[in-house]
Amino acid sequence: MLSEHTRILVESIKRLLRRGATTHLRKILNKSHAADLSAVFRSLPVADQRKLFDLFEDAEKKGALISELDKDTPLELIESMELDDIVEMLDHMPADDVVDLIGRLPEDKSDSILEKMKKEGSEAVEGLLRYGDDTAGGIMVPDFITLKENTTAKEAIESLQKEHMDVEMPFYLYVVDEYGKLAGVCSLRQLVVVPPETPLKNFMKPDVFSVRTNTDQEEVAKIVARYDILAVPVVDETNRLVGIVTVDDVIDIIREEATEDILKMAGAGEEFIETQSVFRSTRIRLPWLFASCLGGIIAFFVIGRFESSLSKLTYLAAFIPVIMGMGGNIGTQSSTIVVRGLATGRLNVRDIWRVVCKELTVGLVLGLIYGMIIGSVAQARYDTGLLAIAVGLAVISSMSIAGLVGSLVPMAFAKINIDPAVATGPFVTTAVDIISVFFYFEIATTFLGI
Amino acid sequence: MLSEHTRILVESIKRLLRRGATTHLRKILNKSHAADLSAVFRSLPVADQRKLFDLFEDAEKKGALISELDKDTPLELIESMELDDIVEMLDHMPADDVVDLIGRLPEDKSDSILEKMKKEGSEAVEGLLRYGDDTAGGIMVPDFITLKENTTAKEAIESLQKEHMDVEMPFYLYVVDEYGKLAGVCSLRQLVVVPPETPLKNFMKPDVFSVRTNTDQEEVAKIVARYDILAVPVVDETNRLVGIVTVDDVIDIIREEATEDILKMAGAGEEFIETQSVFRSTRIRLPWLFASCLGGIIAFFVIGRFESSLSKLTYLAAFIPVIMGMGGNIGTQSSTIVVRGLATGRLNVRDIWRVVCKELTVGLVLGLIYGMIIGSVAQARYDTGLLAIAVGLAVISSMSIAGLVGSLVPMAFAKINIDPAVATGPFVTTAVDIISVFFYFEIATTFLGI
Repeated sequence: MLSEHTRILVESIKRLLRRGATTHLRKILNKSHAADLSAVFRSLPVADQRKLFDLFEDAEKKGALISELDKDTPLELIESMELDDIVEMLDHMPADDVVDLIGRLPEDKSDSILEKMKKEGSEAVEGLLRYGDDTAGGIMVPDFITLKENTTAKEAIESLQKEHMDVEMPFYLYVVDEYGKLAGVCSLRQLVVVPPETPLKNFMKPDVFSVRTNTDQEEVAKIVARYDILAVPVVDETNRLVGIVTVDDVIDIIREEATEDILKMAGAGEEFIETQSVFRSTRIRLPWLFASCLGGIIAFFVIGRFESSLSKLTYLAAFIPVIMGMGGNIGTQSSTIVVRGLATGRLNVRDIWRVVCKELTVGLVLGLIYGMIIGSVAQARYDTGLLAIAVGLAVISSMSIAGLVGSLVPMAFAKINIDPAVATGPFVTTAVDIISVFFYFEIATTFLGI
Repeated sequence: MLSEHTRILVESIKRLLRRGATTHLRKILNKSHAADLSAVFRSLPVADQRKLFDLFEDAEKKGALISELDKDTPLELIESMELDDIVEMLDHMPADDVVDLIGRLPEDKSDSILEKMKKEGSEAVEGLLRYGDDTAGGIMVPDFITLKENTTAKEAIESLQKEHMDVEMPFYLYVVDEYGKLAGVCSLRQLVVVPPETPLKNFMKPDVFSVRTNTDQEEVAKIVARYDILAVPVVDETNRLVGIVTVDDVIDIIREEATEDILKMAGAGEEFIETQSVFRSTRIRLPWLFASCLGGIIAFFVIGRFESSLSKLTYLAAFIPVIMGMGGNIGTQSSTIVVRGLATGRLNVRDIWRVVCKELTVGLVLGLIYGMIIGSVAQARYDTGLLAIAVGLAVISSMSIAGLVGSLVPMAFAKINIDPAVATGPFVTTAVDIISVFFYFEIATTFLGI
């Protein structure tokens, strides 16, 4: 939810836009933080976003806003700008955000931007474009502070005063050997604490965590989170330092990955789509529902097999929802616990049998409890002991099987390196639905002798 | 999943434990990072954890491990320690972790620890115990660097060399006025860059983001994430600086909150429970299933009302699973999108009608598509035009209602300040199940004239 502060800002800007109060708008825009403005932009139609965007006075502010908007940046904003202005704006943005933006533009546009940037000497961005979007290379920034091992603390401070002014994370100084290979790290803090003539190699920390350019971003996030560091250096195949990933990007990754997992499990795509058109949301959500449709049709044929029994005891149909519902819900609980446990590292694929046994047991225990409750309802309504037992048993079997399937499926997918979040949702619900209905009718027809 | 490095560590330690190779174990323990050791501890039974824990040589290492284990720390480890050793260990831990740990201990134990700590002059912890667990006060650390406005850069550097050696986040220096109120912030970086005689107030940033001690931790995390800062200062009611929340704790909060939301939506509790006993998991998951049981029983009575129609056309029962399944799944998609959207700030409660209309439309469009598919299956199987139309219409109404309910319920809960994640799951599935079944039978009996 928006904070009070942002809410007021959004409303003032909307009001001023309606009134066309350009001077006033320009003043507000130039003194607001880009993070707050991004919230304003997100809640405006594209036409208004363009109007506002044109009011910015300097390229740096524009760049900061685009960095914040990230994937929500309407390409219309960029496409209507002059090439020179675009390049000037990009010059003020962190390289990882530039790469993201360029990657989204139509090819002819991005080519001409890159060419222009190259002419002006910013090769860093083109370098970054080589790496996969979701790898350390794709999210790193190429601005960092490197110093040689023999530099003294005093010289290091002097170099900070002269250069490195626009480095994103100036708190770590990376120490490299004569071949440019990462040798250690020291903190800005240490520089001011040690005697000025101490060479860096005397107080640097030589065992520094680093990742490769092709390390998956989720892995990078785990390292930063696990070791409580503010930035992790990225090295190429020869251990040469090529960039750093900073903690603020890691926070974004952790958020994104959580959103992705949540949405995937519900079969609602990977990226947040509420802001997208009805057509796009429909298309993204369609395939997942197809799995469940197929499962429903299979259940339909399963029940069809028992049509003659059903015609003798119509009321059997009335228990279908409760048996399916109980199985489905406990299956969702189990699979959610397992998927999230695997994602956060609390569960490990090697523990597959321990976890599955536990979920099966929980399913069985809960099945006993709810089997008795639902069996009692059946008894109260139809006063047929055998029916009550059959319904109770069906609930027990449905819930234990759901616990089993709900934990086994994501574990098995993880084992064969298929993303458990994406595969689990449709598979588990569909399987549990079919199995529950089948067991219910098998048990009921056997017990009631029909 | 565990990294390769941790996996090897876990296995070596397990092997050495079996062999009772104490000297070797002690060596490994003392040179491993606490974050890695916490993974080892998590995968060992409590008895082994105690054995290992006793092998640590210094209190600082013990403290670092307990900080990492956080809520997974078995209280047995602490309870078997001498009071003196506990206090020595706590002295080496960040205050927020100490508070967490003390809060989990039995009251008599925690009282005697606090008394002992007080005698030794560490009042900070007792101060922190006053704040709610999930507030800025509960997660802040009371160690930070404050300097007066008139201090010069040179004096500031000198003070860094003399004191503040064990501050957690030495990159920000908070500037306070003569009454101790927060006046601004400057970075360590600036200190070394400006001329030495410049007073802090000339280059500090006076508009510093701060939070109150009672600000919810989720709100704190949003501020840190939004403005890309490494720490946020916490002030009391009189704007006096009392602590800071650092970005590493924010990462933990973001993770925890995402896990909490995911689990709540599946009705699987709030905290990750896979590591808990079967009994506890059962107890946590029981109530949520009760809602779905109740819904199933209501659906049972709804179908009971149509028993005479069912006895004429038994095959109507066969469509129950597919109609319930389609409604349930699209309802889950809608509610997941809305709950996550609200949590990440991508959706706002004020947009309630726009969002609900969109989800209703998506439900209708998808309902049309799947209504035709499922209607065709009915037609192919029973060759009754009216039945096919009735089934198709039931799918359409079930799916549009599910889109409506799935988005309206979490939005409405958020509007009246009930956590949408916790309330949505059981409510939506149950409501959609009952409504779907009811509409299906109403439509079918009307069309087929039974």
